[in-house]
Amino acid sequence: MHITNLFILLVFLVNYGICTSRYTLETNYIEVPVDHFSTVETRTFKLRYLISTKYHVKGGPAFVYTGNEGPIDIFAQNSGFLFDIAPRFNALVIFIEHRYYGQSLPFGNKSLTSPENLRYLTTSQALADYAYVIEDLRKTYFGTMLTIDTSPFIAFGGSYGGMLAAWLRMKYPYSVLGAIASSAPIWYFPDLTPCGTFYEKVTSVFERYGKEECTKMIKIGWDIINKMSKTKAGLKFISSSWSLCKNLQNAQDVERLLDWLSNIYINLALSNYHYPTEFLTPLPAYPVKVFCDKLTTSYFNDSKSLIEHFGYALEIYTNYTGTKQCNNINSTIEDPNEVAWNYQSCTELIRPTCSTEKDMFFTKTWSYDEFAKCCLTRYNIKSQRRNWVINAFGGFNIKYFSNIVFSNGLLDPLSSGGVLRNISDTIVAVNITDGPHHVELRNYDPSDNNYVINARKFHIAAIKRWLDV
Amino acid sequence: MHITNLFILLVFLVNYGICTSRYTLETNYIEVPVDHFSTVETRTFKLRYLISTKYHVKGGPAFVYTGNEGPIDIFAQNSGFLFDIAPRFNALVIFIEHRYYGQSLPFGNKSLTSPENLRYLTTSQALADYAYVIEDLRKTYFGTMLTIDTSPFIAFGGSYGGMLAAWLRMKYPYSVLGAIASSAPIWYFPDLTPCGTFYEKVTSVFERYGKEECTKMIKIGWDIINKMSKTKAGLKFISSSWSLCKNLQNAQDVERLLDWLSNIYINLALSNYHYPTEFLTPLPAYPVKVFCDKLTTSYFNDSKSLIEHFGYALEIYTNYTGTKQCNNINSTIEDPNEVAWNYQSCTELIRPTCSTEKDMFFTKTWSYDEFAKCCLTRYNIKSQRRNWVINAFGGFNIKYFSNIVFSNGLLDPLSSGGVLRNISDTIVAVNITDGPHHVELRNYDPSDNNYVINARKFHIAAIKRWLDV
Repeated sequence: MHITNLFILLVFLVNYGICTSRYTLETNYIEVPVDHFSTVETRTFKLRYLISTKYHVKGGPAFVYTGNEGPIDIFAQNSGFLFDIAPRFNALVIFIEHRYYGQSLPFGNKSLTSPENLRYLTTSQALADYAYVIEDLRKTYFGTMLTIDTSPFIAFGGSYGGMLAAWLRMKYPYSVLGAIASSAPIWYFPDLTPCGTFYEKVTSVFERYGKEECTKMIKIGWDIINKMSKTKAGLKFISSSWSLCKNLQNAQDVERLLDWLSNIYINLALSNYHYPTEFLTPLPAYPVKVFCDKLTTSYFNDSKSLIEHFGYALEIYTNYTGTKQCNNINSTIEDPNEVAWNYQSCTELIRPTCSTEKDMFFTKTWSYDEFAKCCLTRYNIKSQRRNWVINAFGGFNIKYFSNIVFSNGLLDPLSSGGVLRNISDTIVAVNITDGPHHVELRNYDPSDNNYVINARKFHIAAIKRWLDV
Repeated sequence: MHITNLFILLVFLVNYGICTSRYTLETNYIEVPVDHFSTVETRTFKLRYLISTKYHVKGGPAFVYTGNEGPIDIFAQNSGFLFDIAPRFNALVIFIEHRYYGQSLPFGNKSLTSPENLRYLTTSQALADYAYVIEDLRKTYFGTMLTIDTSPFIAFGGSYGGMLAAWLRMKYPYSVLGAIASSAPIWYFPDLTPCGTFYEKVTSVFERYGKEECTKMIKIGWDIINKMSKTKAGLKFISSSWSLCKNLQNAQDVERLLDWLSNIYINLALSNYHYPTEFLTPLPAYPVKVFCDKLTTSYFNDSKSLIEHFGYALEIYTNYTGTKQCNNINSTIEDPNEVAWNYQSCTELIRPTCSTEKDMFFTKTWSYDEFAKCCLTRYNIKSQRRNWVINAFGGFNIKYFSNIVFSNGLLDPLSSGGVLRNISDTIVAVNITDGPHHVELRNYDPSDNNYVINARKFHIAAIKRWLDV
């Protein structure tokens, strides 16, 4: 049984993902406590935030993006919506980096090296950071002793950042007046969402955008790879057809290859935007469609030809710009952002993910015990808190919180763990038909369809309601 | 300048305070995480709670008292209101002990011995304990996967316990449906309440219940003590007149005496109930009046006689039952509950308290820096977080929380830091004219006046509203 591939990044960051800087922000740092919840640990560290005062006019609010599992500049450059609407609100725009990611390392390059240093990598600490930075910026830009209504901050976030935006409003409603939580799967956790829904959603994106046979061929692909991998010649053939940097050698390599392939499918679905993007990696518009177009049933019975054509198709994701020499299927294992995210995925943000006959993936079961074992053997992470998210944020019982918009693209695989219905008058949902991952947080684009445009209008109306303007 | 007496217990527990057990509860223990906010610290410890199923009928709610700074049985025996109204609601009644107090010691008798062991003594950890225990009891008594509405828990608390009840609802509104926060001075912290108001309130109780000259004589008392303490004979005279266990020797002893005396005045005001009580210590009805009655102006000019009469008056508080041999002015310094409370008072629950010409106390200034220095020199507590309460619970900005009743006796000295006005439709205040400290949380008494009765009706109406019954 495969127990790997448990640690899908919500947003799987590939380092060469940013090529252009569309928005100009000032980079600042603020000293924050290493531990907000202890009175003994008194160390501090520098947390990075980016700020733009360009559109800020006295009386205007602050839009604050609660950073995700990666360097904050990536999210700043891919959340154009904040900049697009800042002028009409006269808003200050701020992006705060999540501790342990990017440059915000509590113990420098030693941050991820020991349990003792990793112990402060928790969602509670991250939320406390955001509240702390916001109070500091409130004083700087609005003056002291103001109420949340006279110096309103609005939280924004997409994906994990969206969860944090919602949770920030939930836990610190005196810090932010409301939260736009885009594609925030706050229920993608044990006891809240069945493990099979994520892969089903990925599959449905391929069914919707690919040709009829696409998912069928992807399914066959797993078997072909497994069969071919049984011989040395087969391993070599796959390695060269897919331009792997290092030839496949053994079963472990093959397992890694299958995970790598799974992640590509997932990321294609997550990034299936209607125009070319550079968020996860440079991609064409509708990359799922482009990928599937490369696969035809004509080589159904020819394993080698099928593998070769898979190789061409994969280049859509791995090498769209044509500048990459080879594919390193272990390439991100040393990426500190991924190490940090795996740590969070093992300890608090435990996302049950399995594959069933309803989807196009190879069979993967999921059980909490197996998961915990995997965290221990693979990452030496002993402490997992199965019920953390429910304990800390209430699970389905969120109706007593207020002022949150949950937006989800209905073809976003992560929408399976999202809030798709109104919970109360002030916790509301907007669903984007055919929408991918937090598409409406991106900048306006001439090709945006009405669903995306309406979601943005929904956000603007909510913000106006909160601001009472 | 006096910088001592900074650590007034909100409820200054004297160990011989309980003589009778009016209510029968089962004692249980539950393993809770030592650290709810770290994923590295995996130890657990036994938290004590008391439970009564006597009135619980299926469909009824659970009333849960969030324990204060002392052994939980004291609060269970002095919060009869919960038992009085449990039958009409078919309610389960639970009292949860606060970590580091009573029997709930994370590291046994080593809990208070080192910063490393004390680091988990924080309000955040205590609140997380309560939420954790409640989820466990929800499963045991109501079944799994129920929502907060189908298995409603209502939080109750008085004084610091009232603050915790309110904060629990604020931070975990999916854990408790609402909170009755009685005499909860959630604003008795830096930047929220002026330092002089507490002693002013104490003084006003003595003005209201004592004879006209009472506060005047108390004021003169400080001078007399200071003058008399200048000679050995004077020290000896005070020591014997006031039955001190150990004769006063030096200025430091005198300083301690003044603090001891201040605390007695404070506790008399806090306990100025309209019937005899045994909460802090055995006391007659209206102890402030009884105390003041012992002091007459006839010995205004006779220092010795005045000191002697003060001695008689003090016995109202120190020896009402007539069984005590002598008064140890250091008596509680070794009490672990007091050590724990001083720690909390130094680190998070920093209460600005000064005396001015408006009150009957000797002059005491207050500054945060002096306070921090005192914590360091006196208790070796280095880490103080001046802004903790505002950062963690929003200060005045609480209107986005819901379902909290703040009740205050208007003659309760702690009401100066309480919420005395409605904040929103669901965060409401009920003020008890002439009321002392959390009087309405006590059991019904034939002598209860209409103010107290009405406050209880107010609570019952709120609970019904929350339960929708």
